[in-house]
Amino acid sequence: MPRYKLTVEYDGGPFVGWQRQKNGVSVQEALEAAVAGFCGEAVTVGGAGRTDAGVHALGQVAHIDLSKDWPSDTVRDALNAHLRPHPIAVLSAENVADDFDARFSATARHYLYRIVNRRAPLTVERGRAWQVAKPLDAARMHEAAQHLVGLHDFTTFRSSECQAKSPVKTLDVLSVERFGEGLEIRASARSFMHNQVRSMAGSLAEVGTGRWSPDDMRAALEARDRTRCGPVAPPDGLFLTAVDYG
Amino acid sequence: MPRYKLTVEYDGGPFVGWQRQKNGVSVQEALEAAVAGFCGEAVTVGGAGRTDAGVHALGQVAHIDLSKDWPSDTVRDALNAHLRPHPIAVLSAENVADDFDARFSATARHYLYRIVNRRAPLTVERGRAWQVAKPLDAARMHEAAQHLVGLHDFTTFRSSECQAKSPVKTLDVLSVERFGEGLEIRASARSFMHNQVRSMAGSLAEVGTGRWSPDDMRAALEARDRTRCGPVAPPDGLFLTAVDYG
Repeated sequence: MPRYKLTVEYDGGPFVGWQRQKNGVSVQEALEAAVAGFCGEAVTVGGAGRTDAGVHALGQVAHIDLSKDWPSDTVRDALNAHLRPHPIAVLSAENVADDFDARFSATARHYLYRIVNRRAPLTVERGRAWQVAKPLDAARMHEAAQHLVGLHDFTTFRSSECQAKSPVKTLDVLSVERFGEGLEIRASARSFMHNQVRSMAGSLAEVGTGRWSPDDMRAALEARDRTRCGPVAPPDGLFLTAVDYG
Repeated sequence: MPRYKLTVEYDGGPFVGWQRQKNGVSVQEALEAAVAGFCGEAVTVGGAGRTDAGVHALGQVAHIDLSKDWPSDTVRDALNAHLRPHPIAVLSAENVADDFDARFSATARHYLYRIVNRRAPLTVERGRAWQVAKPLDAARMHEAAQHLVGLHDFTTFRSSECQAKSPVKTLDVLSVERFGEGLEIRASARSFMHNQVRSMAGSLAEVGTGRWSPDDMRAALEARDRTRCGPVAPPDGLFLTAVDYG
């Protein structure tokens, strides 16, 4: 059966998250329904990152097996037609080898967390950024972030519901940069644990406002204690931007 | 009475436009209700640009007169509290002289029109850009745009409902630039006519796809004939970014 790699963009706002759940529509379910609408096949759409409710993707990756060998642009356009009116778009479909697995073949995942640092509430950015009223010191946040880069036990920064076998992971990039009233936190790793990026973003905001010192971030990491994490940042600001393979 | 200049941001999606109308909620009306909620005063909020339904603002300017001399940050924060849950935010409130008029004192208005040039439908940008599937040549569009810069009769590019006394205006800037899959059209002038930016953006897209040559843009302008305008671009992509004074 031909296998297709799908690169998928979505506004996570209306969804219960990537993964199928009982309490609402998931991105996975909407994609599976679009495949059924297109070619009548019942597939399971495996994704590279199981984004939570409200979390967005600019470059989620999934794979599907279809019984017929369709031109890849036909797969893309037909799925997009069947995805309406959901805010989900297949940016590209590519024919890939049978052993390509969106989740297990991934070598890196890249996330962006967007903060708008101002007193006024969000309007055009509502649902797509975290508004923080107190002034944030991006340079201090970046300094604190460097304590998290590398191979560490990230117990402090993972959800109590996280199902990963080990809390020890390598974080390749965690950077904080200011652009006007916006802050961009970028995180890259082979894999992340449940709520890890939002936990790190929320803790970095504590450093940004001055409640934590950069050293407090290191102490929180070293404590390996979930109760030492800052407040978990809201899903609105989080985007899965890209997944690398090979 | 103290006069306040308000710089206002909004997502135009849920509104019938800036100006009060019978068929739904306008931005003006929501602001006037917020003023009444804050201090009980019935004011008319005059704006610099009467944006249409669905058109956004990052820097609309309005003015109000209040009977009491409030600290300007109190005015901003109180209006924002009373504007919830509307996607309208007062970015700043400033005490200004009695002769400041948001509309008549304005010396320049700046607009941005955003196009996303790709086959896939919009998701996180839905309602905030115009998706154009056919490849657009931004350099050709920019070349065509230069025919419109300067003092011209813009009859071709104004709505038949436009109430401006004269169609002769000076367009100071009309530029087109590509950033990845996005195109930004920027337009600046002392004033614009009804639907002018969307009419120019739609006509520029005709040049971008190759249906029009840059010279066709000049011919359309010189015809002074509304029927020679390209399709009017949708409101989704249009943002009033700033208004200059003095």
